[in-house]
Amino acid sequence: MEKRVRTGSPDEGTTNQPLLGRRSLLRGGLAAAGFAAAKSARADESIGDNAPPWMKKPGRTFSAYGVPAKTQESVQRTFGAPPGRPGTGVTQTPLQLLEGTITPSGLHFERHHNGVPEIDPAQHQLVIHGLVKRPLAFSVDALRRYPMETHIHFIECSGNSGGYSGPQPRQAAAGVMNGLVSCSEWTGVRLSTLLGEAELASGATWVVAEGADAAAMSRSVPIEKCLDDAMVALFQNGEAIRPEQGFPMRLLLPGWEGNMHVKWLRRLKVTDRTVNARDETSHYTELMPDGKARQYMFLQAVKSIILKPSFGLNLEGPGIYEISGLAWSGAGRIAKVEVSTDGGRTWMAALLSEPVLSKALTRFRLPWQWDGRPVTLLSRATDETGDTQPTRALWLAQYAPGQFYHYNGICAWSVEADGMVKNVYA
Amino acid sequence: MEKRVRTGSPDEGTTNQPLLGRRSLLRGGLAAAGFAAAKSARADESIGDNAPPWMKKPGRTFSAYGVPAKTQESVQRTFGAPPGRPGTGVTQTPLQLLEGTITPSGLHFERHHNGVPEIDPAQHQLVIHGLVKRPLAFSVDALRRYPMETHIHFIECSGNSGGYSGPQPRQAAAGVMNGLVSCSEWTGVRLSTLLGEAELASGATWVVAEGADAAAMSRSVPIEKCLDDAMVALFQNGEAIRPEQGFPMRLLLPGWEGNMHVKWLRRLKVTDRTVNARDETSHYTELMPDGKARQYMFLQAVKSIILKPSFGLNLEGPGIYEISGLAWSGAGRIAKVEVSTDGGRTWMAALLSEPVLSKALTRFRLPWQWDGRPVTLLSRATDETGDTQPTRALWLAQYAPGQFYHYNGICAWSVEADGMVKNVYA
Repeated sequence: MEKRVRTGSPDEGTTNQPLLGRRSLLRGGLAAAGFAAAKSARADESIGDNAPPWMKKPGRTFSAYGVPAKTQESVQRTFGAPPGRPGTGVTQTPLQLLEGTITPSGLHFERHHNGVPEIDPAQHQLVIHGLVKRPLAFSVDALRRYPMETHIHFIECSGNSGGYSGPQPRQAAAGVMNGLVSCSEWTGVRLSTLLGEAELASGATWVVAEGADAAAMSRSVPIEKCLDDAMVALFQNGEAIRPEQGFPMRLLLPGWEGNMHVKWLRRLKVTDRTVNARDETSHYTELMPDGKARQYMFLQAVKSIILKPSFGLNLEGPGIYEISGLAWSGAGRIAKVEVSTDGGRTWMAALLSEPVLSKALTRFRLPWQWDGRPVTLLSRATDETGDTQPTRALWLAQYAPGQFYHYNGICAWSVEADGMVKNVYA
Repeated sequence: MEKRVRTGSPDEGTTNQPLLGRRSLLRGGLAAAGFAAAKSARADESIGDNAPPWMKKPGRTFSAYGVPAKTQESVQRTFGAPPGRPGTGVTQTPLQLLEGTITPSGLHFERHHNGVPEIDPAQHQLVIHGLVKRPLAFSVDALRRYPMETHIHFIECSGNSGGYSGPQPRQAAAGVMNGLVSCSEWTGVRLSTLLGEAELASGATWVVAEGADAAAMSRSVPIEKCLDDAMVALFQNGEAIRPEQGFPMRLLLPGWEGNMHVKWLRRLKVTDRTVNARDETSHYTELMPDGKARQYMFLQAVKSIILKPSFGLNLEGPGIYEISGLAWSGAGRIAKVEVSTDGGRTWMAALLSEPVLSKALTRFRLPWQWDGRPVTLLSRATDETGDTQPTRALWLAQYAPGQFYHYNGICAWSVEADGMVKNVYA
């Protein structure tokens, strides 16, 4: 018995509905019309007569630590380091090539100020000192004995998406534009536990965190955050934190700008003032219209980006597609993500993939039937505090020209009639 | 100003409480007594006079795809393959060396029947045929256009923990005993979407799934599961599924035995009966006391294991420790995990790390003060259906001698006066 097998692909017929509901899609929307590229194949192919070559010989053996398939080698971080400064710059997570919400640890974005130190964990210590009654030094092994907590959180560089502040829309992949954000399951010791053991002395209002890199990267953190959800993270996605993320430990300040999540954490000095470190004075400030720079703006506000489609992932003709992307907020959970396929005139609520966690990447999805006419796609996220992404114009209006930190304006992609996707200011 | 810095480590004083509540611990339990190994250090050490060598030179530069720290090379999968059969056997996840709930993709357990095929994703197809009205063949690219879903789920080999059925407790690491379970964030297409497109014909009651490995690994799956939460998974922890886990796609049957999550999925044949494949007849059955084997027992029932402390992770003297481990159930969410530190006479509820997800690994934690006397530690999980782990004796009594599939009895570790941890039957 031979049957004809069609090549399954989303329905390329058209309907009057610009956006199909998930329910109608699942109930046969895909099957309701013909398929574009039907081709025949033997339905009852058996191993003997139609088996691919890799079924005809034993596969490779077991491995102690697995790596991605060779064919996936192009799924890698993109480099944003300035020439001649090998240890200073960034790599970006290729968000548009990934799925779900967890970032593979090997693809977590990097931001270093003087390279990745190679630390001997047997020698490394975390010292808590300054305005405390009991200065303490912790080895890695000592910290590993403490009560731990596990939380899924994003980390985002406050320079992420800064390219949207430029005068012309840059034609680059979503990950190149927005890939200074990644999300991991972090496990470590709540900082309040350690500060409780050291006992804060009077006047303790700030904690200066210092990394053990050659830049001695330092930031001042308000004591309130240190006593709230701050963590000394030891594990990332189940295993010891990766070198680029701060092995053997980093400070985790959920929802706050990435630079403050001090990597290779070696010192927490409790103080009564900020330290005015290089990275809270010359960088990571907001230039205001009056020419002054606003310091200590820590929150990574509500934000979203459509990843499919996006630049480089063009559409292959009219048909049903899933619009999919990521949303997040440093203030808590994402409450809703709205998607517009008409340049912002009308909006439709996307489906949020459960579980929707606080200060974590949230995947949104919306089935969409593209009729082949040019469209502009936007996404707009709102968090549980009611904060919503501003338009790009409203975001820009808050600052002086050239300010690019903390961009969280609405992003847009245009889809042209030939399916090409471009970054546009809408 | 020079201050003395003590080495922080959990309190090694004793109290009358065998188990401290989390609250008392966080409120100063750790700080209430002296520290065992106090040593002095300069509290105000600066970069110049006390910096480790890795702060004195620039670190290494950026990388396209990161890997773990060199010092972590011993954190790897352990090999359980029989000699002379390189492609048949298992590797185990080193659960006792990991934290949180997500298994790093490189450490997800392996179970292969004829090695790992090296598949060209451009050539690979998934065919749906048999009792369907519209046989279909899907390329990887075509499937990637479908509406997707993202879920965190464990996969467990039904042979996991089978060693507990042996007559003597085996002295081996928790991961060697129980490491045929791993947990990932999976993203893919709901199988019901694809079957809906193919349209089931009358009599469709089973689906035979076949892998594209040299063993053509096949299993029969009831149609009800295929129309429930079954997924054709394309992504694992954000990136394309790893070769050892089925690249470019695997069948995901949340909560059911791992062997059925057919890797390298190439074929789903809808039928009116089971196919009686090798791995549902000669393997993966339950030998009953009457000498008959029970087939098609798919559920991985409620289970838990204490990982810290466990074999190989001995205690370094009396003091406060966190008892920590993993619990899971193929029937849904974990409702509670109870821990006993007295061989099962009394039990105390452990803290479950949020979010507690259905058919996913759940981390449990309990602070514990060890007074230095020999103890026996047990954990007992209950899921949301009310199912609870049986004792080992009750579990054994269900089967004929030698049956080892689907072990979910209570596991126990003894801690001896010198801190040594052993596997015991309690």
